[in-house]
Amino acid sequence: MKCTRCRAKAEVQLRAHNSAFCRPCYVVFFQRQVERAIARQRMFARDEPVLVAVSGGKDSLALWDVLADLGYATSGLYLGLGIGDYSARSRDKAEAFAARRGLPLRIVDLSEVGPGLGVPEVAAATRRTPCAACGTMKRHSFDAAALEAGFAVLATGHNLDDEAARLLGNVLHWQKDHLARQRPVLHPTHPKFVRKVKPLYLVSEYETAVYAFMRGIDYVVEECPNAVGATQLVYKDVLARLEVESPGTKLRFVQEFVRTAQPAFAEVEHQAPGECAVCGMPAYGEVCSYCRLVREVETKRARAAAGRM
Amino acid sequence: MKCTRCRAKAEVQLRAHNSAFCRPCYVVFFQRQVERAIARQRMFARDEPVLVAVSGGKDSLALWDVLADLGYATSGLYLGLGIGDYSARSRDKAEAFAARRGLPLRIVDLSEVGPGLGVPEVAAATRRTPCAACGTMKRHSFDAAALEAGFAVLATGHNLDDEAARLLGNVLHWQKDHLARQRPVLHPTHPKFVRKVKPLYLVSEYETAVYAFMRGIDYVVEECPNAVGATQLVYKDVLARLEVESPGTKLRFVQEFVRTAQPAFAEVEHQAPGECAVCGMPAYGEVCSYCRLVREVETKRARAAAGRM
Repeated sequence: MKCTRCRAKAEVQLRAHNSAFCRPCYVVFFQRQVERAIARQRMFARDEPVLVAVSGGKDSLALWDVLADLGYATSGLYLGLGIGDYSARSRDKAEAFAARRGLPLRIVDLSEVGPGLGVPEVAAATRRTPCAACGTMKRHSFDAAALEAGFAVLATGHNLDDEAARLLGNVLHWQKDHLARQRPVLHPTHPKFVRKVKPLYLVSEYETAVYAFMRGIDYVVEECPNAVGATQLVYKDVLARLEVESPGTKLRFVQEFVRTAQPAFAEVEHQAPGECAVCGMPAYGEVCSYCRLVREVETKRARAAAGRM
Repeated sequence: MKCTRCRAKAEVQLRAHNSAFCRPCYVVFFQRQVERAIARQRMFARDEPVLVAVSGGKDSLALWDVLADLGYATSGLYLGLGIGDYSARSRDKAEAFAARRGLPLRIVDLSEVGPGLGVPEVAAATRRTPCAACGTMKRHSFDAAALEAGFAVLATGHNLDDEAARLLGNVLHWQKDHLARQRPVLHPTHPKFVRKVKPLYLVSEYETAVYAFMRGIDYVVEECPNAVGATQLVYKDVLARLEVESPGTKLRFVQEFVRTAQPAFAEVEHQAPGECAVCGMPAYGEVCSYCRLVREVETKRARAAAGRM
């Protein structure tokens, strides 16, 4: 099998793209995919500083690596979720990558933000699933950190498989409000929200893994322990099956949605948020969902402390 | 396990409906599901004669059985597709059912409509896939037969699994024109088209099979030999997997689509058709797709005959 670009011996075959690449050409191909997504979706300008949310996994580190190589002014943001050893190892990988590349990394640790604010403690105290608690903590912390550091853009490592699985879930339930907001660029609906962008939304998990391997990026291989059995994984499985039957299914599914179907749902937009009475961040009620979670944790801790007295 | 309706011993469990039924109550449940679909979607009126397209399979015979029991004035329509033994056995089952129930059955045989018009011959002569050729032949023949016999409504046995698989395929490719027309009732866009209705669109293949078994309906068990390996079967497989993970997935997927998402696509409507210059039936070009197929078959046969002289 020969490289589609230079006819050298190919190392990787991409059936969805009907292509094969040698190592140097693959890296170029991958960079171009990301560059094109940024340009076509007008994610950010050449000179706009970008805060990259890095988890220590392959997707977010590959994203940071590509953006840095493409010449963007990037900073990393690592959010310590307090998920035991998994979080400790993730942080190590993020720090090691930043050090090796000489890139600035900001660290926010939930357990330092307040007592009992690690994801497992919040989930237990508030009887949410860990993934639900994590989602709320992350959304708030990302916006707050970007705001504090003066970034207008936050980039996340969501890849094609993430987006396809999410889209399948939204479509199976016809969640029109979620479909209305599933876009590779989310413009802020409030001055305290930042623009959220997903430059990897058209590259598959496999493609990102190959890129990370070729570039010698050292990342946490294990999945988050809370993700085991998550419905998203069933959707990914099912999409993998469809992809084998018809290569390019995932890409077409997400790309055509964004290009032609999403506008049909986009009318269903939320009203603009107000401000949270507690933290001042945007909120749809009086208090934002982050502060409601935090309040529940505090109540629980106060009761437990009273019980011990 | 007890019957949800009468507390007798249940014979069948329906996880999607969180219910279980004994035999008599299941038949009532099934009838009501069909009755409700007809009423809610305003498929046809109490006294409107209905032509039921019967293939000899469980879905169409179960449909005919329910409609007759509910007191509708039904006639069957069997279309002989010329698919060897499969068609012969299908016709036998349809005829036996009609005789047993004392219901009128009309028979149209493609090979008697014209030489070389059986599905396998048409597919071979026109280089279509058998399913593509079959679709065109069926659509035309159903409309033509209903028109000739003076029916305004044609009912087909498409079940929830058929509709969910079709919807998944349409969504994976975001075929907006197909999504715009995927409805349980299709009103005619031309006076020579009939209203097409799918009263079984919310009952699963399993539910229909159980009904046919309980009612002692004798049907062709084998699938059409051309269906083997069809993409629809992959979609059905994938949906079965999702249904096991979360019972009710298929029902919600189709029902919510029809209820809330379909209108977003329905704007994309075809222009009204003109009339086919050959057969006078509605056509989007000068000649309808059926007559184009027939013409190709005739050309091929004429050439072959000339070669033999």
